[in-house]
Amino acid sequence: MNRTMHIYPEDRVTLREVGLRDGLQLVRQFPSTQAKRDWLHREYAAGVRHFEIGSFLPASRMPQFADIRDLIEEVATLPKAFSSALTLNERALSDAMQTKVDEVICVVSATEDHSRANMRRSRDEAVALVASAREAAGPDGPLVNAGIAMAFGCSISGAVAQTEVLRLAEACLDAGADVVGVADTVGYAGPRQISAMCDALNSLCGDRPYTVHLHDTRGMGIANAAAALDAGCRVLDGALAGLGGCPFAPGASGNVVFEDLVFLAETMGLTTGIDLTALVGVRDILAAEMPGETLHGALAEAGAPNIDWAA
Amino acid sequence: MNRTMHIYPEDRVTLREVGLRDGLQLVRQFPSTQAKRDWLHREYAAGVRHFEIGSFLPASRMPQFADIRDLIEEVATLPKAFSSALTLNERALSDAMQTKVDEVICVVSATEDHSRANMRRSRDEAVALVASAREAAGPDGPLVNAGIAMAFGCSISGAVAQTEVLRLAEACLDAGADVVGVADTVGYAGPRQISAMCDALNSLCGDRPYTVHLHDTRGMGIANAAAALDAGCRVLDGALAGLGGCPFAPGASGNVVFEDLVFLAETMGLTTGIDLTALVGVRDILAAEMPGETLHGALAEAGAPNIDWAA
Repeated sequence: MNRTMHIYPEDRVTLREVGLRDGLQLVRQFPSTQAKRDWLHREYAAGVRHFEIGSFLPASRMPQFADIRDLIEEVATLPKAFSSALTLNERALSDAMQTKVDEVICVVSATEDHSRANMRRSRDEAVALVASAREAAGPDGPLVNAGIAMAFGCSISGAVAQTEVLRLAEACLDAGADVVGVADTVGYAGPRQISAMCDALNSLCGDRPYTVHLHDTRGMGIANAAAALDAGCRVLDGALAGLGGCPFAPGASGNVVFEDLVFLAETMGLTTGIDLTALVGVRDILAAEMPGETLHGALAEAGAPNIDWAA
Repeated sequence: MNRTMHIYPEDRVTLREVGLRDGLQLVRQFPSTQAKRDWLHREYAAGVRHFEIGSFLPASRMPQFADIRDLIEEVATLPKAFSSALTLNERALSDAMQTKVDEVICVVSATEDHSRANMRRSRDEAVALVASAREAAGPDGPLVNAGIAMAFGCSISGAVAQTEVLRLAEACLDAGADVVGVADTVGYAGPRQISAMCDALNSLCGDRPYTVHLHDTRGMGIANAAAALDAGCRVLDGALAGLGGCPFAPGASGNVVFEDLVFLAETMGLTTGIDLTALVGVRDILAAEMPGETLHGALAEAGAPNIDWAA
């Protein structure tokens, strides 16, 4: 628990930058390892501390994550910075344990259909992998995060009952997850669904943090983030320039825009420790390395307003 | 009061389409009168009932609004549809009273600087115009709506105190406004500022409706709309495809996207009477008539999810 609170302190909101993982999941062209290092270092200089940096998968399948070990090493050199990575099978878990990664993320789909399409295993098998992760990590290894994908509706199966998501989240906690997360993988939720889920997770998780991962597929990303923060969620994901999506979720576009998320938190009087102007500047790397990608985000276009919200 | 409740019924949320006015304020290329008629008719068929259709200004200055009288006539032929138009000076008021327009909108800036830049008159003079509108409209004329521009911060003067906005809103009500509105003209607000303002307006306005007009300049538009709806606001503005902006507000981009606003309301279980698929189809007119404009909006790209929120 102590280690969890070290990575996700109770007294502040943590914004996790998932662009290097979820943001690169679908792209054909991706940044060089050196450009990714610059991305990390410049965001670190801007105040970002939590980086989801890839998925442990064969480089032949996901070449964009071939340099995952280099990036974990890089994050390990940065004081108070934390790396996380997806581990979708036993091999990935075993590989992750050989690194300094701070958190491994297992994915459990909210629906059986998506579980089989996305990971070729049942939901029960996915929960069993969380138990394996817990065992492999031991007391001194990385945190184990169990993320429930399609938690607000599934592009394959349609509606998802909140009770089902909570059942899975509880199963993951019972299996030893340090942190659970809920993902609106295809952007189906509105703010009231997010509020209701966070209220339920507050009860389920108690002192333990939970994460909310939002996609802006239908324009609700920031509204949903606001609802999560209002409900007391203190760990939220976003991707620089709103990169990303899920290859097994037809129609899914990008993650919630990280810069806009930081701005949202500022307007809410929450301290993120992130300098918006410096953060927006990091988009230059994406523009240079991924010229074919649309860079989303209104704040970057308009600039911050001439108001000090904290005043 | 009865007439106000006829146009803005108490028992539902009203979404006002301001694309034909605010959406065309800045554009060089604008739809033909026939295309605007199609826009109106197709949105009406989709369930939209409230149309802000232009500003009474010399055609030489704003050629995009030269056909305002034709459009007012057009709306008047549609059962239970309502037109509104900006009246920024006495001449505009006098012209408006010769038409069947259902609502005239006077603008009062929250800051003296913006008032003089935007309308070449002081705020007191702008409030006096509200009184003139009230007098000109009489008991049977159009509703008088007083919209407070820059109510959440001003691109010229910076921060704006909520108390100052409320003082102006009260002055407008005292001057005879049937409805007051607050506009985040340059997209400075976050959801907490919107909530606080709506709470105060609930107290100030009592049974009378107030309107919230949002711009998505910094990506907060839908989050702010959610906050307004949560706080009990029941009249919100949006523009098809997020068109629009303010020529005297540097950096301002478009209005909150009307389609995404409708989707938001649906996820919140609020009945708008608007068919999303039919509404999204109206964007075709904009694409054809304004090929240089960026059409914003995530819902239109991704489509509605395969979920019935009302179920």
